[in-house]
Amino acid sequence: MAFKATVSGALRATRTMWLLVLVSLCVCVCVGRASSPQEENSAMETIVTEKRAEESHRQDSADLLIFILLLTLTILTIWLFKHRRFRFLHETGLAMIYGVLVGVVLRYGIHVPGDFSNVTLSCHVNSSPTTLLVNVSGKFYEYSLKGEINANEMNNAPHRDNDMLRKVTFDPEVFFNILLPPIIFHAGYSLKRRHFFRNMGSILAYAFLGTLISCFVIGAIMYGCVTLMKHVGQLHGDFFFTDCLFFGAIVSATDPVTVLAIFNELQVDVDLYALLFGESVLNDAVAVVLSSSIVAYQPQGDNTHTFEVSAMFKSFGVFLGVFSGSFALGVATGVVTALISFCHFNNDIPLFYSLTFHCPHVTKFTKLRDFPLLETALFFLMSWSTFLLAEACGFTGVVAVLFCGITQAHYTMNNLSPESVERTKQLFELLNFLAENFIFSYMGLTLFTFQSHFFNPMFIVGAFLAVFVGRAANIYPLSFLLNLGRRNKIRSNFQHMMMFAGLRGAMTFALSIRDTATYARKMMFSTTLLVVFFTVWVCGGGTTQMLSCQRIRVGVDSDQDNSMSITEGPERRSTKHESAWLFRIWYNFDHNYLKPILTHSGPPLTATLPPCCGPLARLLTSPQAFENECQLKDDDSDLILTDGDLNLTYGDITVSTDASGAHTSGAAGSGFTNLATSEDLDRELTYGDHELVMRGTRLVLPMDDSEPPFTDHNNRMRM
Amino acid sequence: MAFKATVSGALRATRTMWLLVLVSLCVCVCVGRASSPQEENSAMETIVTEKRAEESHRQDSADLLIFILLLTLTILTIWLFKHRRFRFLHETGLAMIYGVLVGVVLRYGIHVPGDFSNVTLSCHVNSSPTTLLVNVSGKFYEYSLKGEINANEMNNAPHRDNDMLRKVTFDPEVFFNILLPPIIFHAGYSLKRRHFFRNMGSILAYAFLGTLISCFVIGAIMYGCVTLMKHVGQLHGDFFFTDCLFFGAIVSATDPVTVLAIFNELQVDVDLYALLFGESVLNDAVAVVLSSSIVAYQPQGDNTHTFEVSAMFKSFGVFLGVFSGSFALGVATGVVTALISFCHFNNDIPLFYSLTFHCPHVTKFTKLRDFPLLETALFFLMSWSTFLLAEACGFTGVVAVLFCGITQAHYTMNNLSPESVERTKQLFELLNFLAENFIFSYMGLTLFTFQSHFFNPMFIVGAFLAVFVGRAANIYPLSFLLNLGRRNKIRSNFQHMMMFAGLRGAMTFALSIRDTATYARKMMFSTTLLVVFFTVWVCGGGTTQMLSCQRIRVGVDSDQDNSMSITEGPERRSTKHESAWLFRIWYNFDHNYLKPILTHSGPPLTATLPPCCGPLARLLTSPQAFENECQLKDDDSDLILTDGDLNLTYGDITVSTDASGAHTSGAAGSGFTNLATSEDLDRELTYGDHELVMRGTRLVLPMDDSEPPFTDHNNRMRM
Repeated sequence: MAFKATVSGALRATRTMWLLVLVSLCVCVCVGRASSPQEENSAMETIVTEKRAEESHRQDSADLLIFILLLTLTILTIWLFKHRRFRFLHETGLAMIYGVLVGVVLRYGIHVPGDFSNVTLSCHVNSSPTTLLVNVSGKFYEYSLKGEINANEMNNAPHRDNDMLRKVTFDPEVFFNILLPPIIFHAGYSLKRRHFFRNMGSILAYAFLGTLISCFVIGAIMYGCVTLMKHVGQLHGDFFFTDCLFFGAIVSATDPVTVLAIFNELQVDVDLYALLFGESVLNDAVAVVLSSSIVAYQPQGDNTHTFEVSAMFKSFGVFLGVFSGSFALGVATGVVTALISFCHFNNDIPLFYSLTFHCPHVTKFTKLRDFPLLETALFFLMSWSTFLLAEACGFTGVVAVLFCGITQAHYTMNNLSPESVERTKQLFELLNFLAENFIFSYMGLTLFTFQSHFFNPMFIVGAFLAVFVGRAANIYPLSFLLNLGRRNKIRSNFQHMMMFAGLRGAMTFALSIRDTATYARKMMFSTTLLVVFFTVWVCGGGTTQMLSCQRIRVGVDSDQDNSMSITEGPERRSTKHESAWLFRIWYNFDHNYLKPILTHSGPPLTATLPPCCGPLARLLTSPQAFENECQLKDDDSDLILTDGDLNLTYGDITVSTDASGAHTSGAAGSGFTNLATSEDLDRELTYGDHELVMRGTRLVLPMDDSEPPFTDHNNRMRM
Repeated sequence: MAFKATVSGALRATRTMWLLVLVSLCVCVCVGRASSPQEENSAMETIVTEKRAEESHRQDSADLLIFILLLTLTILTIWLFKHRRFRFLHETGLAMIYGVLVGVVLRYGIHVPGDFSNVTLSCHVNSSPTTLLVNVSGKFYEYSLKGEINANEMNNAPHRDNDMLRKVTFDPEVFFNILLPPIIFHAGYSLKRRHFFRNMGSILAYAFLGTLISCFVIGAIMYGCVTLMKHVGQLHGDFFFTDCLFFGAIVSATDPVTVLAIFNELQVDVDLYALLFGESVLNDAVAVVLSSSIVAYQPQGDNTHTFEVSAMFKSFGVFLGVFSGSFALGVATGVVTALISFCHFNNDIPLFYSLTFHCPHVTKFTKLRDFPLLETALFFLMSWSTFLLAEACGFTGVVAVLFCGITQAHYTMNNLSPESVERTKQLFELLNFLAENFIFSYMGLTLFTFQSHFFNPMFIVGAFLAVFVGRAANIYPLSFLLNLGRRNKIRSNFQHMMMFAGLRGAMTFALSIRDTATYARKMMFSTTLLVVFFTVWVCGGGTTQMLSCQRIRVGVDSDQDNSMSITEGPERRSTKHESAWLFRIWYNFDHNYLKPILTHSGPPLTATLPPCCGPLARLLTSPQAFENECQLKDDDSDLILTDGDLNLTYGDITVSTDASGAHTSGAAGSGFTNLATSEDLDRELTYGDHELVMRGTRLVLPMDDSEPPFTDHNNRMRM
């Protein structure tokens, strides 16, 4: 039997490999096709223009097809890897490898004769308008500005003639405006909030202070390196201190997606996970704003690169303004979405009741299933409009989207139907997956197809050193300081792991490719690519080795972790109380006032507001909440409301659950398990370790497990 | 209680309306913001260029935000409408109304000073290159060709100065390359294949013959109209017969999305639904290819608009070539996806087994839930690459995608896990919803923002007449002819309903906006817009009235329909046999050979191929199929395989089911109901009305009902 299984396994593997080859062939064919020469340059008729437009469209399709097939290939291979349990290569790393391979083929394998008709007009125009009308023998053609071209670049670039390379180069803004938002939103949306809030102080310290430290340390080291290069005569262009700082900012954004995937798979300690993930999510936001405020540094006067206090303060102001503006905007739109969904869901329930209980014949003709679609669409559109609104207002869309995601996960999710929650989660998961792999494969591709790389060995060595030192200067001193305040210390092996997990990824790449106009920026871009490649492949690939080398426990169940905390007794409890006091204040405010206004969970406002505010409370509380109070407990949301109410207003009525019974293994039980643990959080945070179950005040939605919520629902009903 | 409900309902409605106002305000603010003047035109420094790029980016974000908020507003309103059960206005109609409103505001409410720096260069260049390098006082700027501009348009267009209008105008290719594909794919994917195949002959006749008839009738009438206009002196430009035919082709694509939504909701007769939906899906494809082959009509010689037999045949050849090429390509990629998913799923099952039964401790550390994501992503990418591949090869991507969708629904779906099926379905549902509403709201917007409309009353009247006559010449004669062959006649009220349901929609719009270069095309575009508006609002809004006026039964359950067919006895059976003989041949081939090769359902090839082909059959059949044969029936796919095997190879073993017991009402039962009906189809098609259940050979996946497949699965297991 075992032999048979091996044979059939081999057969299957062969089959799959055959298919992979087939797909690769497809890529080659398409590439070959894409390089077919343009044949028509005969006359000046409209037909020619039309044909050229058509040809250009076909070319574009073929170019895009390369990327799609690259992604397909990545998915197929990673599927195989997951079956074979190869953990040393994450899908992003694989996407990069394939990207590099295709890049090599495009660069050296194919030579498309460049567009011969690159005409240089030397007319006397005093400006560079965005739109140009050119009168070509009586006909007017419209041209739009693409950008300035360096004169020496125009003459020197050796691959200028290779049209193919130009074609596969995307507008860098694509990354910022299309690919990054879903990634960042998904990150904010899937923050494991329980452990995130437990370690909030440390995470904020690493993300804000740490990124600043890292940025300035890297900037300083790079400035030393650049000065040295100037002395040696290896520098062939300007490289100012602001450029160094800019480099520091962009490489300070960590993106340990590879490491986190392995952590997730091996169930590494949740606190370590929360620290790393929280830090990486927030330091992306910090790095974006930081880099844009460094660019905004403009001293007045002749020399634009001297130190000036006022300009520095202005930059600092820009940083604070943009960050807080984006933060406020993201939270605001999140709250607006919550309000909208709240109102609509309010409408929904009575209708549903009336349909189900009063006029069943109507139900038959109504497709209530249309509503999850609307809810998901609304959610998607509101998230996107957050991004666009922030960009239109001059804030940073990515940062706004991050906080919008966090807010929506916290409030809006409570107002959606379980099916919508599931759908929305899956949608963003897919978008995140596609965008991430696209970016990484483009990264691989661009190593060879980018037209003007500047690889300087000295700069590269300096950069690697700086990145290493910068990360160390972030993690170790801050951990030391934080450990002074924490009772639940960040142990040294955790620190080493965090140091090791400082991968650079999508955000660093997007920031560095955004502007490659000057010599300094080009060199930065080339170096950044190498840093990303190295960290993703070496650090990402070595995660399991590092984990075992540092003796970090794997297979830690979050429940286990929890029960451990219970056995630890009073000492542990006081830790919680100390470390999360800020959070506790906010939590109480959130639970008593914000949640009742924005969602259906939590007690009605009339119970939490002082009696003098009675009318206001009555106005703000949804009629639903009142109706629920006097209804039978036949509805899930009912149960939630009334229980939450009981818990917080009438004190400590003890509802005991059989904790061990909750931990049924297998597919059907895991939703339930998660429910129990999220209850545990609230219990821990609010009441220490009393055996009290607060079903109504779930702070953490079971967003991070795969079971559809209605399993959970069923279980609860059965209870 | 009733009073209380009314009050709270009113309160809720007020609240929602308040929110709608808030969102509208947002739109206004954003529009206002978008119109803020560009302040910086000081010097020629790079900073200025950067700032201008930034400003332009902010402007673009604001423009896109308008559309996103329009969509959001549409969703919110339609949500309200669905609650209030307003059926006269579909979401697409509503999207158009909002589009028109915003269009009016943009056109008359806001005047942005145009870009002053539209410089006209009058250099002597002999060609219009795609890239232009302009030397502006020593610096080189790169410009890319946008297109030719008519000289008189440049001078005459009255709103040339309104920059805002130009900004909100999308590249027409966006519709063809981004928005249409998901719509068409979703249509192909959700074809109700049971009734589609039952009426395949009629649908093909309407779609191919009917569209051709409609195209030529409309073309002829329009040519008459244009000739008349020329005599009266109302024609201010060229308008050839090919233009008339082109107009005929583009308005022949029907899109009764509004009508079908109401049909779905009211459960109108399934045959009528299948006829309308099948026709509309296929005639879109026909219209696209037809219009492109009309454009390809190029007689040699001086006068390019005379009739020439060879050119006509060439056009006909283009039609056949492009259509069959796109068809073949779509089917081919569908099959490739099926093969890939087949192989991977083959890998999947043993691993899953080994994990679950042999090493449960490994399961704990593995997230098998990652796989649905991969499957959905693969599915999405393969569908997209079909489109791109077809476009790159010079075929029509939309047509390829349509047939790819049909193929994938038929084969690939069987290889995916239930969760992936559900996810994929939901993804395309969402994409379809967003794209459709976007197109319709853009349609509304463009009525006022399009720069050069030509509304000619005579042409418009002629067009409406032609559209009406063309539709009649399609439906009535063909129905008469088809009724000669059909025993299950298409009754006259069905014919009237089909006539009435000839709405024009997204495809017509996309085809007409694609090329608005000449006078004729501009007039066509303006007229097409009106035709779409009229049909969507008037015909779409009057569907319920028309249904009751024509006394078409609503609330027809597909089961009911089925049981009726059983009671009709032998006469009915022979109808089936007659009308579907072509389909039966294909069906047998498909079931015995294609399905076993491509999917997991159907009998193993060794059982269906003649004995001489033994080794080949053994090679092509998945090891899984053999393994299944000797395994316990603890797996669903097992059950399917073995049952199907039983049915088709060992003849007519009768498995009796309690048909009335199957029809349990309520949410949990409906998956089961659907299962029963899809079994009924096979039963009917293959064996007449014998009481035989073929679980394994489900031709129709329950794609068209809302229940997650595992409900169905559970029920079957219970059985």
